[in-house]
Amino acid sequence: MPTISKKGQLMPQSPIRKLVPYAEQAEKMGKSIYYLNIGQPDIKTPKIALQAVKDSTIDVLAYSRSEGSEAYRQKIASYYLNHDIQVKHDDIIVTTGGSEALLFAFGSIMDVDDEIIIPEPFYANYNGFSTASGVKVVPVISKIEDNFALPPIEAFEKLITPKTKAILICNPGNPTGYLYSKEEIKKLSEIVKKHDLFLIADEVYREFAYDGNTHYSVMQEAGLEEHAIMIDSVSKRYSMCGARIGCLVSKNKTVIATALKFAQARLSPPTLAQIASEAALETPQSYFDAVIEEYVDRRNTLISELQKIDGVKVAKPKGAFYCIAELPVKNSDDFAQWLLEHFSIDNETIMVAPAGGFYSTPGVGINQIRIAYVLNKESLIRAVKILREALKVYKD
Amino acid sequence: MPTISKKGQLMPQSPIRKLVPYAEQAEKMGKSIYYLNIGQPDIKTPKIALQAVKDSTIDVLAYSRSEGSEAYRQKIASYYLNHDIQVKHDDIIVTTGGSEALLFAFGSIMDVDDEIIIPEPFYANYNGFSTASGVKVVPVISKIEDNFALPPIEAFEKLITPKTKAILICNPGNPTGYLYSKEEIKKLSEIVKKHDLFLIADEVYREFAYDGNTHYSVMQEAGLEEHAIMIDSVSKRYSMCGARIGCLVSKNKTVIATALKFAQARLSPPTLAQIASEAALETPQSYFDAVIEEYVDRRNTLISELQKIDGVKVAKPKGAFYCIAELPVKNSDDFAQWLLEHFSIDNETIMVAPAGGFYSTPGVGINQIRIAYVLNKESLIRAVKILREALKVYKD
Repeated sequence: MPTISKKGQLMPQSPIRKLVPYAEQAEKMGKSIYYLNIGQPDIKTPKIALQAVKDSTIDVLAYSRSEGSEAYRQKIASYYLNHDIQVKHDDIIVTTGGSEALLFAFGSIMDVDDEIIIPEPFYANYNGFSTASGVKVVPVISKIEDNFALPPIEAFEKLITPKTKAILICNPGNPTGYLYSKEEIKKLSEIVKKHDLFLIADEVYREFAYDGNTHYSVMQEAGLEEHAIMIDSVSKRYSMCGARIGCLVSKNKTVIATALKFAQARLSPPTLAQIASEAALETPQSYFDAVIEEYVDRRNTLISELQKIDGVKVAKPKGAFYCIAELPVKNSDDFAQWLLEHFSIDNETIMVAPAGGFYSTPGVGINQIRIAYVLNKESLIRAVKILREALKVYKD
Repeated sequence: MPTISKKGQLMPQSPIRKLVPYAEQAEKMGKSIYYLNIGQPDIKTPKIALQAVKDSTIDVLAYSRSEGSEAYRQKIASYYLNHDIQVKHDDIIVTTGGSEALLFAFGSIMDVDDEIIIPEPFYANYNGFSTASGVKVVPVISKIEDNFALPPIEAFEKLITPKTKAILICNPGNPTGYLYSKEEIKKLSEIVKKHDLFLIADEVYREFAYDGNTHYSVMQEAGLEEHAIMIDSVSKRYSMCGARIGCLVSKNKTVIATALKFAQARLSPPTLAQIASEAALETPQSYFDAVIEEYVDRRNTLISELQKIDGVKVAKPKGAFYCIAELPVKNSDDFAQWLLEHFSIDNETIMVAPAGGFYSTPGVGINQIRIAYVLNKESLIRAVKILREALKVYKD
C-alpha cells in the first residue's frame, strides 16, 4: 500500500476537532451546548454584501484575475487609505481567505527548515501552515499575567538564527485579544530591520479595537516597506467567514511578484465572494459602531463573570473577540471533554477550546482555555455559570 | 533587505502570462483579439446554479465544514453513482477548485524531493504545484503523432525510483484533448499497484468525451482503491470557473484523513459557491447534450480548418476543449508574441498559448501551440484564417 507523506503525518489536527465527536454525542443525548470554542460570529453579514450577489447579472461565472478583480483591489486600497494605511491596488493580492494569504506569504519567503518566530499563544493554524510549508515555528512565550503583551525584545533576539526569515504576529490577537501598541510595533520594526527579516502581521481583527485604543498597522510604520507583509480578510470584519476572501498586502515588489506566481497557479479567488466583498466595503460606520458596542458589552460581561470564579485567571482583551482564561484544572483538554461528556445544568453544557493547541512549547497553557465571545450576553452569563458550577465538581 | 524563498524564485510563471502585456498593448492600439489561449468557456453557467445563490436566505455568511457541507457531499456522491463511480460522501473532501484538491493531494502524499511522473505535455500548473510542494516532476513524453496517447508503460517503468510517489494524469487531457481508454487506465493501474504508487487522475473534463467514447475513471478500476486519488471540479462541467469549487476523492481512508487536516488548516471552502455547485448538480442532461454538441462542432471545424494549412500538424482531440497544433515555426513563444505585436488582418489578431510551458523537458514542444476552442464556430474559422495568413508572412 502506498504511504502518505511525512508532513501529512505531522500536520496538526485542529485543537477543537478532537472534541467534535463528543459535542455531537452530547447533542444526540439531548444536551444543549453553548459554543464558546469557535470564531464564527453570530453577527449578521451586512445586507449590502449579500444583496450585491443577488443583484448580480453575470451569466457566465468566470475566473477573475489571479490577483483579484481590478475594481475590488482599487476599493480595498481606498478602504486602507481611510485607515491611514497608504497602499496602492498593485500592493494587494486578493486571496481565498486570510488562510491563503498566509500560505502565499510563507511560500514566498520561506523554504523547508527555515524558521519563523511567533509569540505564543498563537492562532493554531499557523502550526498547520508551517507544517505544510516545512517551516519550523520558534515560539516566544507571552504571559497571561501581562495580558499577553509583546515579550521583551531580547527574548526575540535570543531566538534569531541564520535560518530565521520572519516574525509573525496577530494584531489584535487570536486567541489572546491583545492589541499591540504603536511602541511594540516599533520595537518589532527595529528588530526585523536589524536582522533583515520579514514582519508578517495578521490584522484580520483590525476593526475590533476597544476602550478607545487605535489599531496601529505594520503598514503604517515608516521604513518598514520592504519588510512588512500584512494579512487581511473580510471574514471577521463583515461577519462573512464563509466568503473566503482575504488579501496579502506588501510594498515589497518582489514579495508581491512572487506571491502572484502562487496566485496564478491556483488561477483565481472566488468570484461570487469578491462581488459580496466589494459591496461590503460600502458598509456604513454605524454597522461597526453597533458591532463594537456589542462586543465590548459582551467582553465586559464575560470578563467580570469569569473574575467572580475562584481560581480562574483571565487576561482582559483589548481587541478581537477572544479571551484566554486559566482554570484551576490540570489539563483543559480533559476538562473540555468532561464538560461535553459528563456535565450539564438543566441539560445545558458548554464547549470551549483547550488552549494547549495555541502553544507550540509542549506543556505550556494546558490549564488554559480560549473563550470566543461570539454569543449574546445572556448566553455568555449562562455559559459562565455552567463553567463555575462545573469547576466546583470537576476532579482532575 | 530580506530575501524571498528559493521556491518562490523557482515558481514558474504561467506560459500565457508573459503574453498578457502584449495583448493589452494590442488592444490599446485598437486591435481585436480572438482569445484561443485560455480555458474560460463562453458557455453559459446553468441558470439553476446562479438562481440558487439569489434565492438563498442566509443572513450570516458562515464557514461551512472544512470537508464541505454534508448536503453537498451527499449530492456529489449521487452524481458519481450516476456515472458508475461508487463513492460515498465521506470519500470526498470539497476544495477551493481542482487547484486546491491537487495541493492537498500533493501535500498528503509527497515530501520535498519526492518524484511524480506525468505524461507531457501537461497542464502547466502541475509545475507550479510541484514547485510549491518541493516535488520533482519527472516527465514522460507523449507524442503528437499518437494523438498524445499513453506512452508505452515501459517508459514509465524506466523512470520509477525509490523517490517516486505517484503518477499523475489528466483525463481527458488539458492541453492535449486526449481521452484515455479503459485499457490504458488498466495499464497504469497495474504499474502503480506493482510499485506501490498513487495514481492521481485529474478528471475535471469528464463530461467532455466525444465521438461516442465513454470516460473511464480511475475510481471505477477494481483493486485500485488504496492507490487512486481523483481530482474534480465544477469549473468546466458547469462553466463556472469562478466558483472555485472542486473536490478530492479517494477510497484510501488515510489519504482522506490526511487531506482533511490540510482542509482544516484553511477552515472552509467558499460557502456561496457551494450553494451554486449543489444546485448545479440538478442541471438536466439536455444542458450537457447541447454543450457537447457545440464543442464537437467547434472541434470538427477547428481541426478541419487547421488541417488545411500547409506544414501544420494537429492531434485530433477526443475530449476536453483543447488541441495541440505543431506549426512550421522555430519558436512558438516568439510567434505568439509576434501575432500580438506585429500582425493583424482587418485589425484582428489571435492570442494562442505557446506549448513549451506544457512540457517540462527543455526544448520539447517549442514549435507547438495550444488552442482552446472556447469561441463560437464563426470566430474559430476567422481565427484559423488569421493563423494561416500569419504563417505565410512570418519569418523566424
